[in-house]
Amino acid sequence: MNWLTLPIPSPDQRYLLAAISRQKQLTKPSGSLGELEQIAIRIAAMQATDKPSVDKVWISIFAADHGVAEAGVSAFPQAVTAEMVKNFVHGGAAISVLAQQHQAHLEIIDVGVASPLAELTIIHQKIALGTANFLTQSAMTEVQLQSALQIGREAVTRALADNSQLFIGGEMGIANTSSATAIACSLLNLSPEQLTGAGTGLDSLGIQHKAEIIQQALDKHKDISPMPLTVLQHLGGFEIVALTGAYMAAAQQQLPILVDGFICSVAALVALRINPNIKPWLIFAHCSQEQGHQLILDALEVKPLLNLNMRLGEASGAALAIPLLRSACALHTQMATFEQAQVSQS
Amino acid sequence: MNWLTLPIPSPDQRYLLAAISRQKQLTKPSGSLGELEQIAIRIAAMQATDKPSVDKVWISIFAADHGVAEAGVSAFPQAVTAEMVKNFVHGGAAISVLAQQHQAHLEIIDVGVASPLAELTIIHQKIALGTANFLTQSAMTEVQLQSALQIGREAVTRALADNSQLFIGGEMGIANTSSATAIACSLLNLSPEQLTGAGTGLDSLGIQHKAEIIQQALDKHKDISPMPLTVLQHLGGFEIVALTGAYMAAAQQQLPILVDGFICSVAALVALRINPNIKPWLIFAHCSQEQGHQLILDALEVKPLLNLNMRLGEASGAALAIPLLRSACALHTQMATFEQAQVSQS
Repeated sequence: MNWLTLPIPSPDQRYLLAAISRQKQLTKPSGSLGELEQIAIRIAAMQATDKPSVDKVWISIFAADHGVAEAGVSAFPQAVTAEMVKNFVHGGAAISVLAQQHQAHLEIIDVGVASPLAELTIIHQKIALGTANFLTQSAMTEVQLQSALQIGREAVTRALADNSQLFIGGEMGIANTSSATAIACSLLNLSPEQLTGAGTGLDSLGIQHKAEIIQQALDKHKDISPMPLTVLQHLGGFEIVALTGAYMAAAQQQLPILVDGFICSVAALVALRINPNIKPWLIFAHCSQEQGHQLILDALEVKPLLNLNMRLGEASGAALAIPLLRSACALHTQMATFEQAQVSQS
Repeated sequence: MNWLTLPIPSPDQRYLLAAISRQKQLTKPSGSLGELEQIAIRIAAMQATDKPSVDKVWISIFAADHGVAEAGVSAFPQAVTAEMVKNFVHGGAAISVLAQQHQAHLEIIDVGVASPLAELTIIHQKIALGTANFLTQSAMTEVQLQSALQIGREAVTRALADNSQLFIGGEMGIANTSSATAIACSLLNLSPEQLTGAGTGLDSLGIQHKAEIIQQALDKHKDISPMPLTVLQHLGGFEIVALTGAYMAAAQQQLPILVDGFICSVAALVALRINPNIKPWLIFAHCSQEQGHQLILDALEVKPLLNLNMRLGEASGAALAIPLLRSACALHTQMATFEQAQVSQS
């Protein structure tokens, strides 16, 4: 039996109700902490506790290359994937700075970068030197798909072994907005014109070319089954598949998930199509500037915490939202009640 | 000469340009950090430095009562102002928790609470036991207005003496959304119907009553000069005046300001009407759920960082945004450049 079919439990209803009740007793007008109240309540239920906490945060960045990069769909050359992995390790990337600021554990997994990275202190699980170009064939084999899902699951195993209270997945992979856009078009029945964005910084002609390439890919694979795993195999990237696997495993094991931007939201969309019970385990961190992100968030009927016009990936948007979650938990657990503080009620 | 007429310098143009240039060299697609890039650039210019930092944050909460509270414009009794001041001091309020989480200095100033608070370790600068009810007379005298402005200025003097890098003002005062709404209606020529909101939690009938009271106040004072200080004297609260004074003094002395929610935005509106040169010194933290806030932000042509449906006051929205500013500064100063990290460019 495939592990993906394991059940996903519901967050604990008893702690959910207790947290709702406590929020009403804290010294503030009821509801005045807005979305922070909902976040605290949800985390209390997910962690089945009166004292929700996300002090210990685990960030796994999955890096991989994409065969479709040869079609000229990115503003940056493919070499940047490997170069940025080095930058992550040496502490110079945005996510390196943010992980350090927020004292989160950061690990990098090579799940399919097109260059050798053996000299780096990262998790080496390279499936191939990038996916195949999905313009001409399936991006990966069935065996590669299962390997990438499992690699995501293993990241969650490490996170849980370290007693992490929150899982963040991130990605690095030149051309991966093309893969994510193709997947989302396929699963949501949207056109590349609607969903294709600038990625790392294409101009309008570049975006038009990218949308055409994605349309060609959708045409090439138009006869595949609409099952999420089949779509993932044909149009995916190894890092996107690993993210989907990580999200599935985290929810199965009741670890709250903070979802980053466009690509991570597509991985979450796939996970939701595999098992809708994952939904209460997902907290959406931000809406990115990438054209299709708002459409995907709308389709998922979720509202993210931040909207700062970012479009970087690397889990950077999720990392920025860590202090908001910590504030929500601190307010929930540390504020005085009306009774304790002897404050009059309305 | 009144200190309010002292000049407000511009942020340093040389450091502004240097920061813009550095952002383009950092290992990320240009612009991909969205509003964080603008925040880092602005703080670098305000602080005239290559290394912007808001590690040291100063929060001054001004508390005062309002004569108009007797007209039944709040969901909470007036006693809550004093009760919440005690709660701030004892660490049980939202801002107490957030200030501790973010290691910000928090001080409370009694600028006009209606009960004696002499036993508390706060700054005692009580001007009166609340303002007069502006339904029947001017909320305060000219002398009281100048005192409250000066009290705000003195908070900034303390912040600077402590080498603070960012000033946050906050407020506590039952009925102060009524005062703030009346001021905003007067200065922006908007109707109480457009601007009046639920405050601490009025129902729709309560909001209607509150809007009628505010209209009565506007009618009563319809013949006053439209000068911002005159409007402030007739319709203000001591804490709102102190916030205006603090913002003016901070900008004059080149200390970046993080503006909290609805009431603080009205104080900032008054400050902008006194001297428009204050604008580059103001960073708007969040859009609150209070009905009129978005209209005021639109009138000021500013976009705040957060929108979490909060409506608490106490500087809580600004406190939540502190880590975003710190992230912006950390990314600006600590990320590697393309050259340093040997990453290929687009």
